[in-house]
Amino acid sequence: MSPITRRDMLKLTSAGSVAAIALPPSAIAENTHAPVPRWEVFEVSLPGPSTGNPFIDVQLSAIFSLGQRTVNVDGFYDGAGAYKIRFMPDTIGSWSYTTSSSAPILDKRSGSFSCTAALAGVHGPVSVCNYYHFAYEDGAPFFPFGTTSYAWIHQSDALQQETLATLRTAPFNKIRMCVFPKSYEYNHNEPPFYPFERTAAGVNDFTRPNPAFFAHLEQRIADLRALGIEADLILFHPYDRWGYATMPAEADDRYLRYVLARLSAYRNIWWSLANEYDFMKAKTVQDFDRFFKIVEQHDPVPHLRSVHHGHVMYDYSKPWVTHASLQVYDFEKSAERHDAWRKPIVYDEIQYEGNLNSRWGNISGEEMTRRFWLGVIAGCYVTHGETFIDPDKLPDVTDTPTIWWAHGGKLSGTSPQRIAFLRKILEATVPAGSDPGHYFPRPGLTESPDPYYLNATTVDASGKLHPIVLYYFDFHQPIWYDFPLPPGTYSVDMIDPWEMTIHSLPNKVTGKPRLKLSGRPYQAVRFTRVD
Amino acid sequence: MSPITRRDMLKLTSAGSVAAIALPPSAIAENTHAPVPRWEVFEVSLPGPSTGNPFIDVQLSAIFSLGQRTVNVDGFYDGAGAYKIRFMPDTIGSWSYTTSSSAPILDKRSGSFSCTAALAGVHGPVSVCNYYHFAYEDGAPFFPFGTTSYAWIHQSDALQQETLATLRTAPFNKIRMCVFPKSYEYNHNEPPFYPFERTAAGVNDFTRPNPAFFAHLEQRIADLRALGIEADLILFHPYDRWGYATMPAEADDRYLRYVLARLSAYRNIWWSLANEYDFMKAKTVQDFDRFFKIVEQHDPVPHLRSVHHGHVMYDYSKPWVTHASLQVYDFEKSAERHDAWRKPIVYDEIQYEGNLNSRWGNISGEEMTRRFWLGVIAGCYVTHGETFIDPDKLPDVTDTPTIWWAHGGKLSGTSPQRIAFLRKILEATVPAGSDPGHYFPRPGLTESPDPYYLNATTVDASGKLHPIVLYYFDFHQPIWYDFPLPPGTYSVDMIDPWEMTIHSLPNKVTGKPRLKLSGRPYQAVRFTRVD
Repeated sequence: MSPITRRDMLKLTSAGSVAAIALPPSAIAENTHAPVPRWEVFEVSLPGPSTGNPFIDVQLSAIFSLGQRTVNVDGFYDGAGAYKIRFMPDTIGSWSYTTSSSAPILDKRSGSFSCTAALAGVHGPVSVCNYYHFAYEDGAPFFPFGTTSYAWIHQSDALQQETLATLRTAPFNKIRMCVFPKSYEYNHNEPPFYPFERTAAGVNDFTRPNPAFFAHLEQRIADLRALGIEADLILFHPYDRWGYATMPAEADDRYLRYVLARLSAYRNIWWSLANEYDFMKAKTVQDFDRFFKIVEQHDPVPHLRSVHHGHVMYDYSKPWVTHASLQVYDFEKSAERHDAWRKPIVYDEIQYEGNLNSRWGNISGEEMTRRFWLGVIAGCYVTHGETFIDPDKLPDVTDTPTIWWAHGGKLSGTSPQRIAFLRKILEATVPAGSDPGHYFPRPGLTESPDPYYLNATTVDASGKLHPIVLYYFDFHQPIWYDFPLPPGTYSVDMIDPWEMTIHSLPNKVTGKPRLKLSGRPYQAVRFTRVD
Repeated sequence: MSPITRRDMLKLTSAGSVAAIALPPSAIAENTHAPVPRWEVFEVSLPGPSTGNPFIDVQLSAIFSLGQRTVNVDGFYDGAGAYKIRFMPDTIGSWSYTTSSSAPILDKRSGSFSCTAALAGVHGPVSVCNYYHFAYEDGAPFFPFGTTSYAWIHQSDALQQETLATLRTAPFNKIRMCVFPKSYEYNHNEPPFYPFERTAAGVNDFTRPNPAFFAHLEQRIADLRALGIEADLILFHPYDRWGYATMPAEADDRYLRYVLARLSAYRNIWWSLANEYDFMKAKTVQDFDRFFKIVEQHDPVPHLRSVHHGHVMYDYSKPWVTHASLQVYDFEKSAERHDAWRKPIVYDEIQYEGNLNSRWGNISGEEMTRRFWLGVIAGCYVTHGETFIDPDKLPDVTDTPTIWWAHGGKLSGTSPQRIAFLRKILEATVPAGSDPGHYFPRPGLTESPDPYYLNATTVDASGKLHPIVLYYFDFHQPIWYDFPLPPGTYSVDMIDPWEMTIHSLPNKVTGKPRLKLSGRPYQAVRFTRVD
């Protein structure tokens, strides 16, 4: 056995790539680790007991401190005698930690590291901003333009790489994806990894998570993080043939704590308690209430938390929910939902652009584009999905074609480029250097005298109000309109959301200008305050 | 003074064109009139008192008899000493009548006439058929494909003639129109006639209807009747500057009885108690309940009865309502409404194809066409309207342009020809010679295993069932679909509702055929049973 250094013993690693090294407890002492940029993952790997069932038998946590502030973080067993603690430092400065564990070898281990400035382009985790909106922790606004690929991490590696390549140039900054594999129409393949130990006959041992499964999941979360994409990570879902939707309550709870211990340090995670929670017949609303409380209690960051519904909405006014994640597209009810919940609304499932034989999977690109505009105009956010199959083959439904919504791969619809266009327009409402804490008005200021418009008030670096007023006319085609503007002088842009053109009028306007319009449906008009 | 004959004294006239002749009561006796075809208007004109206020002072009615059957009919004062009784005979045979009146000269007058076969193409008044549908009295099905022109009879005569010329070739068999003139945006002109006597200063005498006004209205009803168009006659509406929306209750009730006495004999009338009843601030729901009861009691035909709402629906389950007349376009709620009301539903205001600056008046022709298909597929009926203004003139809103929805004139939208196409498809579901009493299934048979389709079961002359199954895919664009058909063998037609093409497949299908589709949105498929 070759000599080992202190440096070998307590390794600072990038998540998912560490191998633990066994070490006698007497050798461990106060340890200084390499610096970690703000909002990246700090990880301590400690050798510990590997007999019995370490997942169950051994408790491990650490308290991280910076000045008077302390943060309690759960550790986890990563197999092969290795125990890990991960922590995302959110404040620049010198952090220290001390462990506590039921295993003496893991107890009272301590160390310190310096949290340095964030890497270029890193803004931290996303949280709620101004009641109905989102921002990164550094204050940069975050406008969710999500997509959906439920089981993309459960496909072949080549297909996963193709998905990542697609996401690199796609307009999406959030992706809805499941921890567990999926069993459904068009989803009949086995996943490369299973989340728990499992006999050849398919009998699960829910007391033993599979570290390889989670290391792979973490790699994909990290891949998305590198692309600037939020992982809207679905923790439970009903489309299951392996037993993950019907675990006993204690297994559910242990699974949640294991996921939280492993993953909370990834800044780009949103916790989605379930896809279609109400379709999970083995679970009650009270189960999901309990899950929320577990997540709230054991997530040190904390990340955004929601749950997605099938037919029956969860009560999004409950205090542990940070935002609504809806499967409806009745955007006209957004104002009453905002009033009821005082939270951001993400229309996370509005049917998919595609050509399947199911209504949820065959809307046109025009309709998908329209729904994005309707959601954004209502002051909410919208999530894309795509379900195209090759029209030259009438499918054998026992087959598993590659469909973006479940498998990833390539996008072939007509809506993504229009969604990119809308995203650019929305992002342009926040001038560079503005205080993004004010990029949308607070409740009470969103009351609109006009049913068409979104009033996006912005503040520039000088502290001056810059309202953007954005109209979308949907299937309406007025040939003229009296636009009731807030005080100020405005430039006017005529926007065609489908053709993706912006035509600026030569004259500025003020008051309630009467403007002639094209008389075509699905047009938009943007007013930008210039005085 | 020249001698007058008995024939002069009791004239059988076409409605609205008679001049009454005074005659001493002793000269009146049993009188035989010229024959009247079934469902046309029989009219008796009697001279009577012209002093005081005959509208108030004189009661007049008649009992018409055929065999054991008697029908009580109210008469009315038509001005200049003339009293009239109108009656629409619905049964072939020899009818007789006897009057009763508070004026001795009008009392106990009697006569008889023969009701002969209906004129060619005349089917009688429309009533409810098979719970959710309509048929003429002779059993011929009536599929309402209405339009809207609220104040067309209150425009210049030239414009009224242009409207009638338009209607002659338009695809509409029902028109929503007001008795009273209209005061609203774009509706600022004075009507040629006022419904009540009125001083130059505009003070109404609600006790004195204006016979010239009503004669003109009747002429227009008769014009529509000649075109085979049902007059969906709106008795009250809120858009008023003359006082007709705020008459005292006794004036309202007298007005209703006067209209009923004058107009019920026109077979092509539907009584619409109001346009946007809930916007009439001077009236309560109880007022409208009372109006319905008056109409029910004093209409001998009886015609269809409904009331149209603004924001708050009337309770269409009330027994005096024959069908729902809705201002919504959430067609997906049709099934629950059918279940609740067990009555036909006409989506009478679904916004208008046009280019106005108001949301209700600027939907595209594509959207109007889509809404017609959605309504029909839901087993309901839909009403058109059009609100185009000249795009080359930004309008002065104090002006009164000619807009179809209020003034009539010409149609310029793109939806009417598509509505004509749909109407032909629907009418073709009823084979010639079929028993139209069975052209749609009774409740319990409309339950559909598939959310897309309308199951229109028909019966041909031989008594054999001929189901038509009509699919409309809206913004959905499946590339294939498994169509769950009822038992039997079917021909298949691929229908493009916008291009107005019908492409018949060469092969017949049965069971649950999997058919390849175009992958384009807004397509339809029709299956017609052939075995």
